Amino acid sequence: MKKIINQPEAVVDEMLAGLVFTHGNIVKRLNGSGVIVSQALQKNKVGLVSGGGSGHEPAHAGFVGKGMLSAAVCGPVFTSPTPDQVLEAIQVADQGAGVLLIIKNYSGDVMNFEMAQELAEMEDIQVATIIVDDDIAVEDSTYTAGKRGVAGTVLVHKILGAAADQGASLSEIKALADGIVPNIKTLGVALSGATAPEVGHPGFTLGEDELEFGVGIHGEPGYRKEKIMSSKELAKEIVSKLKEAFEWQAGDEFGLLVNGLGSTPLMEQYIFMNDVKALLAADDLKMTFKKVGDYMTAIDMAGLSLTMVKLNEPEWLGYLNHSVSTIAW
Amino acid sequence: MKKIINQPEAVVDEMLAGLVFTHGNIVKRLNGSGVIVSQALQKNKVGLVSGGGSGHEPAHAGFVGKGMLSAAVCGPVFTSPTPDQVLEAIQVADQGAGVLLIIKNYSGDVMNFEMAQELAEMEDIQVATIIVDDDIAVEDSTYTAGKRGVAGTVLVHKILGAAADQGASLSEIKALADGIVPNIKTLGVALSGATAPEVGHPGFTLGEDELEFGVGIHGEPGYRKEKIMSSKELAKEIVSKLKEAFEWQAGDEFGLLVNGLGSTPLMEQYIFMNDVKALLAADDLKMTFKKVGDYMTAIDMAGLSLTMVKLNEPEWLGYLNHSVSTIAW
Repeated sequence: MKKIINQPEAVVDEMLAGLVFTHGNIVKRLNGSGVIVSQALQKNKVGLVSGGGSGHEPAHAGFVGKGMLSAAVCGPVFTSPTPDQVLEAIQVADQGAGVLLIIKNYSGDVMNFEMAQELAEMEDIQVATIIVDDDIAVEDSTYTAGKRGVAGTVLVHKILGAAADQGASLSEIKALADGIVPNIKTLGVALSGATAPEVGHPGFTLGEDELEFGVGIHGEPGYRKEKIMSSKELAKEIVSKLKEAFEWQAGDEFGLLVNGLGSTPLMEQYIFMNDVKALLAADDLKMTFKKVGDYMTAIDMAGLSLTMVKLNEPEWLGYLNHSVSTIAW
Repeated sequence: MKKIINQPEAVVDEMLAGLVFTHGNIVKRLNGSGVIVSQALQKNKVGLVSGGGSGHEPAHAGFVGKGMLSAAVCGPVFTSPTPDQVLEAIQVADQGAGVLLIIKNYSGDVMNFEMAQELAEMEDIQVATIIVDDDIAVEDSTYTAGKRGVAGTVLVHKILGAAADQGASLSEIKALADGIVPNIKTLGVALSGATAPEVGHPGFTLGEDELEFGVGIHGEPGYRKEKIMSSKELAKEIVSKLKEAFEWQAGDEFGLLVNGLGSTPLMEQYIFMNDVKALLAADDLKMTFKKVGDYMTAIDMAGLSLTMVKLNEPEWLGYLNHSVSTIAW
């Protein structure tokens, strides 16, 4: 294992120390814990809390700040944070208008975030939740009942964060969340496995000329292995699956996110986006929002995913374009 | 070679097509060429042009926009753009107040950018140049007489871009450039080689347990190979070399940039920054500006670099913090 680390068991602690040192104007760390909090919390606005296992940087701490998350809970690598940690984040995020938890659909996260919700409600904090399950690759998976939550979660942070920043109430934000999540879908491809520091070797391996569609962001199995193919062919497979899932019509309006999984160069991500564009243009879709880069990674996995959000309501595009002050959006 | 591309010889063209599709609000492409131009050029302000071979994304196109570069010239992978292309960029960047060329110190870039300068001057465009040679690893190198220009170049874009945005004249910006470049120094470490698409295999290889200090961003040889070591030990080596080069004193003020070379996760970059911080704090340095992420990459090379800028003048920090509208700052 070639990694720039010290003790494998200290990676999250040291990463967060480096992160708050670097971005102390945007975020702070709660008592040396895994909770990263915005420096710009606003009284009487709804707080948004997300998080999960670490290893997906910049998610989620990179999306804490004005206009997105109030706090992110950073668990051990690929492991859910405890209910106590989530509770701490809820307590600090509550500015009198309640808190919405944005949970990626993994059994551990769902259990621990919902337990924290119960604990917070016992303290009379209003809490609502949204579970993000945007990955259309497979039903049920290694750590998941139902579909997994992946890069689309970042768009959920962005859209809900803008609404919260503009003063929406908790029930309005919950309704917005219920409206957008079914309209966000993602599919990815992996070219290599990810190596968690405490494990020391890749979670799965692929042959020198192999790739796998639909691998999860913790290395969960995908739906098909294939020989390495061109970006155009990758785009065709991924777009065709998303088309099936959305059943889109000419004229439909979408936002696009090409997300690098960790070690795939930006060059390749832009090439892939160019191929996606051609396919979607051929179907006469409106593509009014686009983003490319590493947003929800799997440590050092090579590969990328395409997230599409169907922009059913005109405000959703406004929320995506609302200005923010975060580390990584 | 596992890459998400189509024809290796088309990577730059397709990447730029994807880039302008994604970020059409910030940049445009000049006639399908390798010249990426800001959508926010300002009349009677000095234009800044940089560029070089591709493969260093987000550099340099990611730094085009209000407050940084007017245009970036994107050559073939690891190959200087031609004088004609640079001339086109100068012509579009000139808004009546002249143009400064920011050139990384590689023989091909220096030759072609200076040739473009001569061509532009024949058209009565005022042009000045600054050559960035921040890499302290080695004197002279595969493609370089003198020291190489690496990640510190991005800080040059930022500082000069802010001054230009605030209305400084070409001679003022040239004087500022001459003042800051000697105060910017960088040293890096590579854990793996980079694979250029048209080459198809890594430019150099390291053993499973090996790293190399001072490798260039095109895979040029560094100054020493070692067995893999901890982040703390890496930081100690790199900081000690920078300390020798700067001869810093307690109380000196610095800006820091930890730059990922392409496939090193953010997690590791923040851990390294945390170790750098401890060493610099022990020397009582003021660290008033910090940045972590992939800014000047070498395609898919694993590794990182540390850039330090000695903030001799109070305005320099202001320039670093001046707000911009670019893809990647």
